[in-house]
Amino acid sequence: MSQSDTLHALVPDLRAICGDDGVLTDTAQRRTYESDGITYHAELPGVVVLPTTPEQVAGVVRLCAEHGVPFVPRGSGTGLSAGALPRADGVLIVTSRMRRIIEIDIPNERAVVEPGVFNLDVTRAAAPHGYYYAPDPSSQQVCSVGGNIAENSGGAHCLKYGFTVNHVTGLQIVTPQGELVELGGKAADAPGYDLIGAFIGSEGTLGIATRITVRLLRSPQKVRTLLAAFDGMDAGGRAVSAVIGAGVLPAAIEMMDALAIEAAEAAVACRYPEGAGAVLIVELDGPAAEVDSQFEQVTRLCRDEGAFELRSADDPAERTTIWKGRKSAFAAVGRISPAYIVQDGVVPRTALGEVLGRIAALSAESGIRVANVFHAGDGNLHPLVLFDDAEPGAGDRAEAVSAAILDLCIEAGGSITGEHGVGVDKVCHMPDMFGPDDLAAMDRFRRAFDPQGIANPEKLLPTPRLCGERPGARKGVHPLVASGEAELF
Amino acid sequence: MSQSDTLHALVPDLRAICGDDGVLTDTAQRRTYESDGITYHAELPGVVVLPTTPEQVAGVVRLCAEHGVPFVPRGSGTGLSAGALPRADGVLIVTSRMRRIIEIDIPNERAVVEPGVFNLDVTRAAAPHGYYYAPDPSSQQVCSVGGNIAENSGGAHCLKYGFTVNHVTGLQIVTPQGELVELGGKAADAPGYDLIGAFIGSEGTLGIATRITVRLLRSPQKVRTLLAAFDGMDAGGRAVSAVIGAGVLPAAIEMMDALAIEAAEAAVACRYPEGAGAVLIVELDGPAAEVDSQFEQVTRLCRDEGAFELRSADDPAERTTIWKGRKSAFAAVGRISPAYIVQDGVVPRTALGEVLGRIAALSAESGIRVANVFHAGDGNLHPLVLFDDAEPGAGDRAEAVSAAILDLCIEAGGSITGEHGVGVDKVCHMPDMFGPDDLAAMDRFRRAFDPQGIANPEKLLPTPRLCGERPGARKGVHPLVASGEAELF
Repeated sequence: MSQSDTLHALVPDLRAICGDDGVLTDTAQRRTYESDGITYHAELPGVVVLPTTPEQVAGVVRLCAEHGVPFVPRGSGTGLSAGALPRADGVLIVTSRMRRIIEIDIPNERAVVEPGVFNLDVTRAAAPHGYYYAPDPSSQQVCSVGGNIAENSGGAHCLKYGFTVNHVTGLQIVTPQGELVELGGKAADAPGYDLIGAFIGSEGTLGIATRITVRLLRSPQKVRTLLAAFDGMDAGGRAVSAVIGAGVLPAAIEMMDALAIEAAEAAVACRYPEGAGAVLIVELDGPAAEVDSQFEQVTRLCRDEGAFELRSADDPAERTTIWKGRKSAFAAVGRISPAYIVQDGVVPRTALGEVLGRIAALSAESGIRVANVFHAGDGNLHPLVLFDDAEPGAGDRAEAVSAAILDLCIEAGGSITGEHGVGVDKVCHMPDMFGPDDLAAMDRFRRAFDPQGIANPEKLLPTPRLCGERPGARKGVHPLVASGEAELF
Repeated sequence: MSQSDTLHALVPDLRAICGDDGVLTDTAQRRTYESDGITYHAELPGVVVLPTTPEQVAGVVRLCAEHGVPFVPRGSGTGLSAGALPRADGVLIVTSRMRRIIEIDIPNERAVVEPGVFNLDVTRAAAPHGYYYAPDPSSQQVCSVGGNIAENSGGAHCLKYGFTVNHVTGLQIVTPQGELVELGGKAADAPGYDLIGAFIGSEGTLGIATRITVRLLRSPQKVRTLLAAFDGMDAGGRAVSAVIGAGVLPAAIEMMDALAIEAAEAAVACRYPEGAGAVLIVELDGPAAEVDSQFEQVTRLCRDEGAFELRSADDPAERTTIWKGRKSAFAAVGRISPAYIVQDGVVPRTALGEVLGRIAALSAESGIRVANVFHAGDGNLHPLVLFDDAEPGAGDRAEAVSAAILDLCIEAGGSITGEHGVGVDKVCHMPDMFGPDDLAAMDRFRRAFDPQGIANPEKLLPTPRLCGERPGARKGVHPLVASGEAELF
């Protein structure tokens, strides 16, 4: 039987598990799911299923395992590494009908949710009790908690609060063999292997999370946000070092360069100080006494490093105004460039200045503009590589600059992705960062969960077919255009 | 060849790898290593090696893998679950000669150390720069960072700062097949599987950490400690709930009952308030402004819940006085009982009151005294089950009470170990907490790293040989006597 026949033969069983309305085979319907936030990678899924319970997910996966059919999990499809790229020969398992908040347990400071729940809805449910859920990717209005698990999502506030992995204490998962397994629970530490940590960030290759227990945090007593404008990136960078060096741990420190400011201004008229070569957004949260004393300290440090304008936001409306430019920066770049690549890399914070200088040099050499928007506190860069896709060869040059930026990150002791994941998009960069023994250990680990290799195959770990035989060789696949409609990072 | 002949045949190769002084075969020398902190479990290791480099560790493990010989890793031997119990048919790999602090990297807030380094020495090396290493098991003067990795050690301050897993960003490990593999690095998040999280707490079953990169934290600007005395445990428990409920996150909240106070008084004359049915130690740290305002709040909440005496400690000497009783409590119990079992379990904080009541009832029914010392903030109980080993049957009754306490923890939605690990000691309790699918998933994971089953075999996961065929069946192995000489928890 051909792969496509095998798939078709499964449809009646899939309907028996998920119901008629839970299985999509129509081409137009399947088209909805052909890509995630990186539209450059696209493929029509063989079949789409929309289960409503953990048992249905387990049933679908068991059926796939019995027939050796690959499956791909998908949350809201806002990912930026093509981690949810479907397969023509496989089943796409979409969690969007699993959107119940099962429990808000305030005495134990936990929420229990289904994987399709939107990130921000956890905070919305906890807010009346004075609590919130900390991980806050910019797509938090629409991205799913299950997708956050797959990608170990961060957000502007992960400097202080950490990534998704720091906020999940329990998972119910369906393994690639279709078993329902419980990992952890409401307690902070469980005996045995901490497979929660390994599962989070595994990009759908170890199975599907079907119920998620997260930590809720007390809403801070006070939040204050500072916008500081500098002549150039050097001064801004020195201010970041001064703040961290003084022992202040802000909830967020974000930085944007002149080009990113120009784009944001064009898109949302955020009115950042005129003539700024760099703006820094520093947010402090915590007990009021602490926030106020640290706010003064941060203001002084920024002024010492040459900030020529300082704005303070103390209420939600003012804060929203300051954040608007930053949060819209990715999409805004569309206003100043016909096409762009969103890159995501990490450098040790101490190497930020040097790496930014080398990115500027790369840009000058190649004639390709690069706008920089980044989480300065933890060295997570999001360079936006701008080009005109109507200009012959520009795409290739942009791609080369984008790849060279990742090389700079690795050279500086950093990483090829801070929070967007590997997916398909960066799979051939993995050998640039990991040795053959490291990759072999990861592969053995994957096969322990998925001996048949059916769970999101050809994502995360390189294979000779994808990347060639030579370790470190690259197929050179990069996103040429990211979808710029929503807040994506 | 018999197992013992196989081992003997390896000795010349082991000497070639570790040097003559790095291999111990003499019985008296091997005797030193026959147990860890739980002396009830003891076995003479077949051979002991003391490597000095990661390459030597890898060489020893490769040799073991080639010959199918089991190995057991050991740090300082302060563990409390017999996780480092040696094997007569195996090689004990002791990391005590790997004690270099390789780097204190203040700009990136990291330390890189060898596995044999004492926990407290990391803080000692960072302190001149105004930094410290957060995980602080009570054995921190002598326990090794490598051992902390194996057990995912906590400490009194893990309520606010988390466990070892929250403070390690990079590991070099030797896998059970003798490969040197790098996991993570200095950056906070790495692509691929988060095998650091899985490795930490794996109790030596996935290999040996040979180089460890940890996060350093800024020393807090201010630390204040409060001792509050209550008539009984109920009032103390209510005060804990009130503090947490008010949104205060202390660095530590510890609680002791009357019997534990009596023991501490007998051992170290800590002068806790007379007639106290419970004492609470609350430590606050952070920016001075925050600490002072929260200290007032906590003091008020304790008084509202009936604290009849409150003492404040603002300098290191006063703090040491308050902590002395708490830190000596385990060893101190030897003053009031000829023998005792140290138990370690977790309950959701909201279930603390009920579980403590049921422990008291168990104690009354059985005539076995139980002293309670615990990390109240995160529900980590350390009941000390007291008995007279000269009294026939008392040991069995104490063991039954100790096991019943774990059942209470599981029933309340908690766990069979908070920070001491599973080791040999609790391996037959694992099926009480995990279902067959859960255990099978863990076993597959273990075998992905260790297909031959030579890395610390028969620890952590139950086998029919150890625990019988029936899931949930127990061999009933419990420590009858813990070594009471040092600060052990």
